[in-house]
Amino acid sequence: MGIQAGRDMRSPIEFRSDNSVGVAPEILAAISEADVGGALGYGGDRWTEQLNEMVRQVFEHPTARVFPVPTGTAANALALSGMTPPWGAVLCHRDAHIITHEGGATSLFAGGAVMSAVSGEGSRVEPERLLATLKGVTWGDPHESQPAVLSLTQPTEAGTVYPVAALKDLSGVAAEFGLTTHIDGARLANAIVTLDCSPADVTWKAGATAVTLGATKNGGMSTDAIVSFDESLSDGLVFRTKRAGHVPSKMRFQSAQLLAYLTDDLWLRLAAASNRAAQRLATGLGLLGVEPLDRPEANILFLSLPPEAVARLEEQNMQFYRIAPGVIRFVTSFKTTDAEVDDALVRFGQALAG
Amino acid sequence: MGIQAGRDMRSPIEFRSDNSVGVAPEILAAISEADVGGALGYGGDRWTEQLNEMVRQVFEHPTARVFPVPTGTAANALALSGMTPPWGAVLCHRDAHIITHEGGATSLFAGGAVMSAVSGEGSRVEPERLLATLKGVTWGDPHESQPAVLSLTQPTEAGTVYPVAALKDLSGVAAEFGLTTHIDGARLANAIVTLDCSPADVTWKAGATAVTLGATKNGGMSTDAIVSFDESLSDGLVFRTKRAGHVPSKMRFQSAQLLAYLTDDLWLRLAAASNRAAQRLATGLGLLGVEPLDRPEANILFLSLPPEAVARLEEQNMQFYRIAPGVIRFVTSFKTTDAEVDDALVRFGQALAG
Amino acid sequence: MGIQAGRDMRSPIEFRSDNSVGVAPEILAAISEADVGGALGYGGDRWTEQLNEMVRQVFEHPTARVFPVPTGTAANALALSGMTPPWGAVLCHRDAHIITHEGGATSLFAGGAVMSAVSGEGSRVEPERLLATLKGVTWGDPHESQPAVLSLTQPTEAGTVYPVAALKDLSGVAAEFGLTTHIDGARLANAIVTLDCSPADVTWKAGATAVTLGATKNGGMSTDAIVSFDESLSDGLVFRTKRAGHVPSKMRFQSAQLLAYLTDDLWLRLAAASNRAAQRLATGLGLLGVEPLDRPEANILFLSLPPEAVARLEEQNMQFYRIAPGVIRFVTSFKTTDAEVDDALVRFGQALAG
Amino acid sequence: MGIQAGRDMRSPIEFRSDNSVGVAPEILAAISEADVGGALGYGGDRWTEQLNEMVRQVFEHPTARVFPVPTGTAANALALSGMTPPWGAVLCHRDAHIITHEGGATSLFAGGAVMSAVSGEGSRVEPERLLATLKGVTWGDPHESQPAVLSLTQPTEAGTVYPVAALKDLSGVAAEFGLTTHIDGARLANAIVTLDCSPADVTWKAGATAVTLGATKNGGMSTDAIVSFDESLSDGLVFRTKRAGHVPSKMRFQSAQLLAYLTDDLWLRLAAASNRAAQRLATGLGLLGVEPLDRPEANILFLSLPPEAVARLEEQNMQFYRIAPGVIRFVTSFKTTDAEVDDALVRFGQALAG
Repeated sequence: MGIQAGRDMRSPIEFRSDNSVGVAPEILAAISEADVGGALGYGGDRWTEQLNEMVRQVFEHPTARVFPVPTGTAANALALSGMTPPWGAVLCHRDAHIITHEGGATSLFAGGAVMSAVSGEGSRVEPERLLATLKGVTWGDPHESQPAVLSLTQPTEAGTVYPVAALKDLSGVAAEFGLTTHIDGARLANAIVTLDCSPADVTWKAGATAVTLGATKNGGMSTDAIVSFDESLSDGLVFRTKRAGHVPSKMRFQSAQLLAYLTDDLWLRLAAASNRAAQRLATGLGLLGVEPLDRPEANILFLSLPPEAVARLEEQNMQFYRIAPGVIRFVTSFKTTDAEVDDALVRFGQALAG
Repeated sequence: MGIQAGRDMRSPIEFRSDNSVGVAPEILAAISEADVGGALGYGGDRWTEQLNEMVRQVFEHPTARVFPVPTGTAANALALSGMTPPWGAVLCHRDAHIITHEGGATSLFAGGAVMSAVSGEGSRVEPERLLATLKGVTWGDPHESQPAVLSLTQPTEAGTVYPVAALKDLSGVAAEFGLTTHIDGARLANAIVTLDCSPADVTWKAGATAVTLGATKNGGMSTDAIVSFDESLSDGLVFRTKRAGHVPSKMRFQSAQLLAYLTDDLWLRLAAASNRAAQRLATGLGLLGVEPLDRPEANILFLSLPPEAVARLEEQNMQFYRIAPGVIRFVTSFKTTDAEVDDALVRFGQALAG
Repeated sequence: MGIQAGRDMRSPIEFRSDNSVGVAPEILAAISEADVGGALGYGGDRWTEQLNEMVRQVFEHPTARVFPVPTGTAANALALSGMTPPWGAVLCHRDAHIITHEGGATSLFAGGAVMSAVSGEGSRVEPERLLATLKGVTWGDPHESQPAVLSLTQPTEAGTVYPVAALKDLSGVAAEFGLTTHIDGARLANAIVTLDCSPADVTWKAGATAVTLGATKNGGMSTDAIVSFDESLSDGLVFRTKRAGHVPSKMRFQSAQLLAYLTDDLWLRLAAASNRAAQRLATGLGLLGVEPLDRPEANILFLSLPPEAVARLEEQNMQFYRIAPGVIRFVTSFKTTDAEVDDALVRFGQALAG
Repeated sequence: MGIQAGRDMRSPIEFRSDNSVGVAPEILAAISEADVGGALGYGGDRWTEQLNEMVRQVFEHPTARVFPVPTGTAANALALSGMTPPWGAVLCHRDAHIITHEGGATSLFAGGAVMSAVSGEGSRVEPERLLATLKGVTWGDPHESQPAVLSLTQPTEAGTVYPVAALKDLSGVAAEFGLTTHIDGARLANAIVTLDCSPADVTWKAGATAVTLGATKNGGMSTDAIVSFDESLSDGLVFRTKRAGHVPSKMRFQSAQLLAYLTDDLWLRLAAASNRAAQRLATGLGLLGVEPLDRPEANILFLSLPPEAVARLEEQNMQFYRIAPGVIRFVTSFKTTDAEVDDALVRFGQALAG
């Protein structure tokens, strides 16, 4: 395995999270370039203006608006708060980040609206279950929280990707019952690369009213964003973001990052790199006889390994997270190199050999 | 006035806001230096750890905790939400940013708690009025929102500064009635420089439980912070910040900025520069026969000028804000040079001359 | 003064509140009559259906809807929560019950919306001040809570009444800036009697979108109500009332009270009695040389008397509230008799004589 | 079956809900007796004072406090809002009324706290599942809503009853992880009668901090109540109830109902009657070969019958609810007579015969 010659087998290999690595050079450069005087605060600057134009172009939507916010939690919860009345329910998969890992943010911002979980394989909401859930609602009965939004994570928490047709099916079912659709795209670029489709295809053309556009996990520094395809929602978000403390005076530094991110397909190139690393890892694992729990379609894969093997992987300084008893997670990033993947596969081989 | 030789009289001079200028070089450098891999997310990184140590040292408080957040609004509202029950009232000056310019953020985060305004000259809460307000409360009567926190802006929105003794008086009156004290220190460094005191003197030693530590207006890029001197408040803020979308995975880039900000008194040096520019401007204006509305004690000054003079200033490309009919505001920054001030004074002279 | 022969001078005379007295016999009878089986819960009963019809007839509005709730606070806060976005402000007089005595209920139900006070004599909002306030707003600026509703108390907390023309002026000014108008009619019947107008004249014809219809202070037992003249608001109130715990299974007992209240003008007859008692009291006081602080136009009057006179009144077992230093409040009720008023005047005479 | 001679087979028999019937005569009488003047408002009356004494005596708890509120939803949501921080989670059975039928009330009042469902047979939370849920929490991690309260419905929505030992087990498990326990006792009296225990045994002695004391479903007219066994919780509820619009000026009419309800064990006698009717119904159904889905332990029973049989029951004017496909619910009340039950059984016999 000469490929990893020169690497110390005991040096750490990072698979914990795509936010553990640094910032894409183009984005860091954009920050420096935005460091000029004379800018107006709170988004009244030229970077934010250009960003809005860029988003309209990239998403092929004439009235789309973008709201830079520092986290995916802010993006999800603020967008959803504008899409549901306080007495509404947000439907999502039971593995969805918004229900498991955002500390109730959506309920806070949406005046006590609730989350309601739907099931499905591979952390994907299944249309039949969604339909059954919606048919079971007593519509108009104030005793029951009324489903108002469907939130889909793309790619999912399991590292799977909804095909465009599936998004359309789901948002179509939702629309029949009056629900709008939100997409948590913390890793949206990875899904677009996998699907080889346009940003429009996977968002508003697939029925989404608003999308969380992740950047932090894909080379950004301090910003994600809401992209809203609905003007009324956008009008409210002007106020919702501000009163949540999410409108910084120097917003230009967030907008500049996002501008660089979308320029010349940087976001897709970064995502392609992390996707490719995950595929290389999965392929190599397959050769070692190890199959991921779900077929990895983005940059995340989960494995079920015996405790001893997990322990040996850790001893070899492989960095990953234990997600549940017997389940470990690997996330690749735009910085993951072929050499790192191959090195990891060597360690896997040794760990599995016992 | 040879001092501004070489400057074009028509080039803009920036007095709109201290957030219109760029980032201090030390802070930009710190961001780049933090761009390394292998960091844990959500504040589990070494920059955040060091920042907590630094804050304890700078504020001379063994259990202080710091929560980097992107805006002063987030810092104020989240801290206050942990200091008042939902049925409480936050007392502040009627000019306070938290009541006039944060879109109801505190009411949002504090479960519908209300703001209650107190008066006083120079945007300073007057102890007698505070006392009268507190004596007028029917304590324990659920019909009345119960004052729970006193929030003081230091320096004030009028550019004045509370002396340390005044802070102690006010927080002492508040404490007699069971209120804790919060300081909105969006420009705290400017006040510390003016008072020539220690950070501890003007915060917890003066009775504050939590303080908003501004950085963005004083050379920072994308972060302010809450500094909490109360462990129970801190424990809650861990959750409050997260569910408000204010715990970024790459928090290290905020912590790194704040570390640089506090290192070697950078924050005080930057504030000293902007204070000095404001003093130079005020002195020059005095010579021209123009007195600010309040004596400027930090880096802000307000003038009342005839409409024609204001218009002429604008024609000369002086950049400032019209705050109210006949009232204009000038804010200096750490980047404001003596040459700019002197140039501005020349233009003032011409504008006043008519 | 033989009129009070047979009354013990030391027996208490009740002027504390119109809720200190009992229930109108017609209302108590209606409760008993509603005590039959077979009713559907949560308003799906015939009393609630009839009440809706009755309200439409009494208010001459084809789509009005009524929501019985147990308190004026619930009626005000729930209605207002449907009339303002979370980032909105409710404008009202600084003496308004909703800002002084409801513990922040509106902010709770409206997702952190704020209250903003306007001034005016006799606890009435003055159109010029309203206009000035609205002109001073930076519309569309998310830093500022955006006024969304004007709430008027009719009669006011000072016992004064807005003429119909004044209501129209105020709601007209509000409408120019996009605000809707709410009326806190905790004692609405008293105002209607004073103005000798129709319920429609003083509500939707005067520009109100929703009104709090008080009954408890005017002979009711356990219910007030929201009357909504806007179908979209009504649709939301179905949910808002339920999730606030304000939709009892046996709502019929509240609806039955309100039905009796509105039947054969009972509410107006009860209010006429209390208004008349207040007028008799004011007239008598005038003869004694005592003038109320505001001309009483409903059933409340305020006096400013020397502390000794107040003490002597209390010694004579007159029951009233000290509202502020040197200010006492008298409230008459539908049960206040001429004999009680005359008895009170005798005691006044003695107390004033010293 | 001569027992029902004289009854018209086609007259309706009421099994829809225990709130469809009227008010217990003792309670109606108490309301009339409370209709006297001179009472102070907002609970400052002698009925409310006596009620507090009565509750302390009945529940054998020296500092218990009672808060009359008009609905179980208000009682549950307000109590829970005082028992969880905004970032907390309320654990309950997935069938619990608070999660299925209160429109998100708890999330509203608790600042966006969330509900989290646990499973178990007969709508009872199972201790092992509770334990597994609590062990699976990442305590202190702000990404996860932190379980703060366990809410148990007693009797459950399935008409089953937790034995005292089970309550102790569950609240014990909860306490190990720092959770307090709440009991939704919308039909608490029915459980006490079934268990033949004291009110203390089934509440605070079993580990409950607060309990919803239902009265409306058991002969009351317009009130349920919160009983709090924790002084700090009670102190907050003074404010929480008010700002939710749940402190009526004439609270005495609610307190008087509850006083009568608790006097001379009226509540237990009423519950005994409805329990007995349910037992008689279940016994008779057993003889007809029909077994309820869960063994009825209070006054509710569920049956699974073929659609044709359900239709025939409805044709015979039996009044009950279809809860789910193939599942119907019968609720007896304090007014259900033996004759009605026997009549119902005759109709069952005929409906089942086809």
